[in-house]
Amino acid sequence: MPNFSYSVLGTGAIGGYYGGRLQQSGAEVHFLLRSDYNHVRQHGLTIESADGDFVLSRVNAYQNVADMPPSDVVLLALKTTHNHQLSQLLPQLLKDDGLVLVLQNGLGVEDEVADLVGAERVLGGLCFICANKVGPGHIRHLDYGRITLGEFRADYQPGGITPRLQALAEDLESAQIPVAATADLIEARWKKLVWNIPYNGLSVVLNARTDALMQNADSRRLVETLMQEVLTGAKAVHQRAIPSQFVADMMQTTDQMTPYNTSMKVDYDAGRPMEVEAIFGSPLQQAQAAGLALPQLAMLTQQLRFLNERAQS
Amino acid sequence: MPNFSYSVLGTGAIGGYYGGRLQQSGAEVHFLLRSDYNHVRQHGLTIESADGDFVLSRVNAYQNVADMPPSDVVLLALKTTHNHQLSQLLPQLLKDDGLVLVLQNGLGVEDEVADLVGAERVLGGLCFICANKVGPGHIRHLDYGRITLGEFRADYQPGGITPRLQALAEDLESAQIPVAATADLIEARWKKLVWNIPYNGLSVVLNARTDALMQNADSRRLVETLMQEVLTGAKAVHQRAIPSQFVADMMQTTDQMTPYNTSMKVDYDAGRPMEVEAIFGSPLQQAQAAGLALPQLAMLTQQLRFLNERAQS
Repeated sequence: MPNFSYSVLGTGAIGGYYGGRLQQSGAEVHFLLRSDYNHVRQHGLTIESADGDFVLSRVNAYQNVADMPPSDVVLLALKTTHNHQLSQLLPQLLKDDGLVLVLQNGLGVEDEVADLVGAERVLGGLCFICANKVGPGHIRHLDYGRITLGEFRADYQPGGITPRLQALAEDLESAQIPVAATADLIEARWKKLVWNIPYNGLSVVLNARTDALMQNADSRRLVETLMQEVLTGAKAVHQRAIPSQFVADMMQTTDQMTPYNTSMKVDYDAGRPMEVEAIFGSPLQQAQAAGLALPQLAMLTQQLRFLNERAQS
Repeated sequence: MPNFSYSVLGTGAIGGYYGGRLQQSGAEVHFLLRSDYNHVRQHGLTIESADGDFVLSRVNAYQNVADMPPSDVVLLALKTTHNHQLSQLLPQLLKDDGLVLVLQNGLGVEDEVADLVGAERVLGGLCFICANKVGPGHIRHLDYGRITLGEFRADYQPGGITPRLQALAEDLESAQIPVAATADLIEARWKKLVWNIPYNGLSVVLNARTDALMQNADSRRLVETLMQEVLTGAKAVHQRAIPSQFVADMMQTTDQMTPYNTSMKVDYDAGRPMEVEAIFGSPLQQAQAAGLALPQLAMLTQQLRFLNERAQS
């Protein structure tokens, strides 16, 4: 028996896949949908997955949060570019003791949620997954899938492995979702940025897959110095000392990855807004507030803002 | 009567336009051509110019330097990406007391020529011109046209305004080519980089004209910090203190320019190699040798090398 009931806010690749897995495992799941509502109401969700395809022919689909029953856990899987809607969506979805699991990209995303529902109700989840929405209610899960799960604290100290975090991890694991519980969500966020910043950013600016970025000596060196800047930022902003070896490990991991179009590149190519502020602007701004310049992160952020603004105008 | 005879090495937009103007003014000019040889031999050069169109129905056209008579002045107007050919081309073109006027882009281009013919025979010319070759022997001069002319010295000290520089300026001015004589070629080279580095580089990486780069707040700020890095480089490498006001002036000049596709962007779009090493790699390498990092120039250089290598492979 699952420990919690769930509401999925944002039924795209992330929300659709993880919410679908939870329902498949027997959990009560409620999905908020926009453009796919009619299709999903009629046909449910179709998940093609590297870990086994499945179809949920009936799901609890909603067009408005006002119609949704309160849940124990809200999976926040909206793109951060929609976060201006959170104050209208989030509070009414939660039971009195409900939790929000923030499955969004970037740094500072838990802070926005904490401002709305209180920091004590917020956990963060970092999704290491290749998945795309390929049609209405149709998710394709290509590879990976692990969620790194951690408690958020308003003072940015490590939140430890709490019983409720363990209960949430149990539900996810029962749903075939690999979980890595972390005592230090903030460190995990910075570590994810070590990968996301160079590869997401340069894949867009240079119109390149990960393998091309790794094979050219100049872009490879640039990836590495960007990673080093992220380490400098983690130390200055949140006093997290990520060892240099982590950079070498990320480079090696990427060398061995299947050539990959990053999620930001997929968004950019599809004409969707990129999550520049959550992934780039927020760590940059926090580093600058701590007195740090990070010139290459600044330049990459400026380049992406330029491209984002032009694509959206 | 012109003071000198001329050979044009590289009859593209720059060599064709300036060489054509000199011939039109009555100077003896010899043109080295490659792919356009047959056409120009038969039909001469056609110049459409903002300062008045003209046709030279007969020009001295050559396919091989071995057939060319020695001249007083060689106008070196090859793209720097062809500089590996210089040792085979240049020495035999010069009279014993002949001069080379280096009309190429970037930093360190005079050094390469000085190594072949001796520093005392080298002058540099910085071309501020919008011109393109639009067909065989067909040059279109759109705007501007001034050459900043200076003496090269192997010790990088200001070379002053010499009589031979004045004689060369006279020839050019008689040919309707505006000249600004400078006592300090090295400072002029760095000043030109202040414009060329941000606009040429970012126009390629961001696929943008000058006006788009100036209108977006982020790219505008990036242009400015790149300009500041060039100033830092000029000071560290060659002890030239270009005032910050020069950056503000360049920004203002560009705000008022007709929206413009940079020459590097034109090359990139046409699939031609970009002059990354002369304009970016050389000042970067010299700054690094002087102990300076210039992180944004480094990043832009790496991005351009990546794009150049991919486009050429």
